Amino acid sequence: MTTQAKAYAAQSASTPLAPFTFERRDLLADDVSIDILFCGVCHSDLHTARSEWDGTIFPCVPGHEIVGRVSAVGSDVTKFAVGDLVGVGCMVDSCGHCPSCQESEEQFCETTGFVGTYNGPDAHLGGHTFGGYSDHIVVKEGFVLKVSHDEKDLAAVTPLLCAGITTYSPLRHWNAGPGKKVGIVGIGGLGHMGIKIAAAMGAHVVAFTTSPAKIEDAKKLGAHEVIVSRNADEMAAHANSFDFILDTVAASHDLDALTGLLKRDGTLTLVGVPEHAHPSPNVFNLVFKRRSIAGSLIGGIAETQEMLDFCHQHGLTADIEMIRMDEIETAYDRMVKSDVKYRFVIDMASLKQEG
Amino acid sequence: MTTQAKAYAAQSASTPLAPFTFERRDLLADDVSIDILFCGVCHSDLHTARSEWDGTIFPCVPGHEIVGRVSAVGSDVTKFAVGDLVGVGCMVDSCGHCPSCQESEEQFCETTGFVGTYNGPDAHLGGHTFGGYSDHIVVKEGFVLKVSHDEKDLAAVTPLLCAGITTYSPLRHWNAGPGKKVGIVGIGGLGHMGIKIAAAMGAHVVAFTTSPAKIEDAKKLGAHEVIVSRNADEMAAHANSFDFILDTVAASHDLDALTGLLKRDGTLTLVGVPEHAHPSPNVFNLVFKRRSIAGSLIGGIAETQEMLDFCHQHGLTADIEMIRMDEIETAYDRMVKSDVKYRFVIDMASLKQEG
Repeated sequence: MTTQAKAYAAQSASTPLAPFTFERRDLLADDVSIDILFCGVCHSDLHTARSEWDGTIFPCVPGHEIVGRVSAVGSDVTKFAVGDLVGVGCMVDSCGHCPSCQESEEQFCETTGFVGTYNGPDAHLGGHTFGGYSDHIVVKEGFVLKVSHDEKDLAAVTPLLCAGITTYSPLRHWNAGPGKKVGIVGIGGLGHMGIKIAAAMGAHVVAFTTSPAKIEDAKKLGAHEVIVSRNADEMAAHANSFDFILDTVAASHDLDALTGLLKRDGTLTLVGVPEHAHPSPNVFNLVFKRRSIAGSLIGGIAETQEMLDFCHQHGLTADIEMIRMDEIETAYDRMVKSDVKYRFVIDMASLKQEG
Repeated sequence: MTTQAKAYAAQSASTPLAPFTFERRDLLADDVSIDILFCGVCHSDLHTARSEWDGTIFPCVPGHEIVGRVSAVGSDVTKFAVGDLVGVGCMVDSCGHCPSCQESEEQFCETTGFVGTYNGPDAHLGGHTFGGYSDHIVVKEGFVLKVSHDEKDLAAVTPLLCAGITTYSPLRHWNAGPGKKVGIVGIGGLGHMGIKIAAAMGAHVVAFTTSPAKIEDAKKLGAHEVIVSRNADEMAAHANSFDFILDTVAASHDLDALTGLLKRDGTLTLVGVPEHAHPSPNVFNLVFKRRSIAGSLIGGIAETQEMLDFCHQHGLTADIEMIRMDEIETAYDRMVKSDVKYRFVIDMASLKQEG
C-alpha cells in the first residue's frame, strides 16, 4: 500500500523541473509521515537535478532541507506525535550497526553508506528515494529531527538541516569557541550559517570573501572582521593567526593562501568537493607548522538535533528568500550566479495549491 | 677568542666535501663544548651540501645527528658535566620567548625560526653555523640532549637525533599505541626508525614499500604486516582501516592511495617536503571520512629527550653502516641510490686521525 505524493521532478539532466506524482510507502511501525511545509534549496539539488555529478537517477525529486508537521506515526514510534513540528535533512537511513552508526556518525556509515533523502536506494519500494520538493514524506523515526514548537520562522529553519549542520559539525569538532580565531571562507548558503554559528559559539570570527561588496553583509551576519581574500596585504596581516578555517567554497581554488594563515596545529577544513582539483597544496606549509587539511561531511543525527537546539537557543536561522515551487528553475539560475541572500526556500503551500 | 675546528666542508654545490678548518666560539656561560664521536648522515646533509634546496651558504659543514662527550662547560651550565655523553640534533638555538618556544616546540619558533645546526645564522661569530662533520661543537646547554652512559652502541644512537625524533614526534602527537593500526610509508633512514618506534609504542604496525625485496627486512624491523604499495589488491584489502599513516617519502607520489586506507577521522602525516608537488589530493577522500592530511617537523627539545629515553628503555637504535669521514662522497652517491641499511654514520675518529 502506498500514498500518492505530489512533487516537482527533473525527468532528465536537460529538462526543467516540472509537476510529477509518485508513490510514498505506507507507514511502517517505526515511520513518521510528514506534511512538508517548507523545503530549502541546496546547491546539491541543482547539481543532482542537472546531473552535474555522476549518478543521478531520473526522475529526480530533490530537496533535503525539510521542515513539516507530523501527520501520522507508526505503531512503534515513541518520540513524535501527530501535530509535532519536525525536520528531515540529508539522510533518511543507514545500516545502524557499523561503528560510525553506533557512534551516531551515520553520515559516515561504513557498510551501505547513508541513504540520501533523494537519489538514494529505496529499500522499501525499490528504485530510489524522492526528496523534499513534494507535499509529504515518510521517514524512519531515527532520522527525523524535532523542531521547537515555538520557532517563529519555520521557513528560515529549513536550511539548518543541511547548511546548518554542515558548518556546525566541523566548528564543534575542531573546537570553535571562546578564545579561538575562526575563519569562514565563502559567504553563501553554507558560509553565512558558518558565520552565525561560529559567532554564537563565542569564537572570534573572520569572514573571507572575494567580493568587497559582501563586507557589510558579513559583519551583519556576525563576523568580527572581514578579509577580502584577493588583497594580499590583508591576508599577510593575518598570517599564522587562525586556530581553524572552515572553507565552504567548492570551486577549485588556492589552499596555500589559507593554510598560511593557520597557527601551529591549526586546521583548514573543506566541506565542498571541487569538480576540478584544487592546486596541489604546499606541503612546506603543513610541515613547518604541523598544520592539517581535513574534510567534513554534514553531521550525525544526534549532532543535527544538538545543532537545531543550539540554533533555537541562540535565535539563529538562515537568511532566506521564499519562492513558489514553480519558480525553482529561476531560483537555480540565480544560484548559479550567486544571486541569493543566502538560501532559497520553497513554500510548499504553493505546490499544494497547484491544480 | 675561539678554538679551531677540523671538519669536512663543501666549498660549492659542485665540489666534493673535503678537509676544512674553521673557528668555534669560546664557551659562553651557558655553553657546552662537545668532542664529537659519531655523526649520522641525513638526506638533508646531501641536499644542502649539493645545494639542491635553495639557500645553502658555502662553505657548508653538514651534520645534525651528533653524539659526543662533553669536554668543557660554561660557568652557568647545570645539567651537564665534563665526561657526559650527549647528543645534538637539528637545532642549536631558538628565540626562547614565543609561544612555541615557551611550549617546548622550538622547531616551530615563531620569531626567528629555529637556528639550524648547520647553515643557520650564527649570532655569536657572525656568518653561519657549521654542523657535525667536525671534531667538536659548542652548543647552548638548552639544546644539548643527555645520552645514557650505558648505551652500548653510540654510533647507532646518532640517527635518533633526526630520524628518530622526526618519526617519534608525529607518532606520539597522533597517539600511536595499543589498539591503533599505524602505517609507515617508506623503509629508509626515517621509515626504519618509524617502524621500530611505532612497534615499541604498542601499535599494530604496517609497513608500506614499493619493493618486494624489503618485505623481510621490514618484518625484522618490527612491522607486523608489510604491504607492497604497487599491488592494488593488497592496498584494497586495507581500505578504511588505519588510524594513522606516517609518510616518510619525500618524492612526489600519489597520496589518495594512502588517504583511502584511513579510517574515519584518520590522519596521513607527511614529514618530507617534495621537490615537485604531489598530485593534488582527492578532497572526496577527506570529506567522506573526515580524514586529514597533516605535516610534522622533527620535534621539540624536551620531546627529543623523551624520545632518547624511550629508545634507551626499549633498546632501540638505528641500523647503521659506519664510514670514515673521507668516504662521505661515496656514501652520498649510495644514498641517492637508496643503497644503505639504513643510515650511514661517520666515525669521527677517522677525521681526527687525518694528517
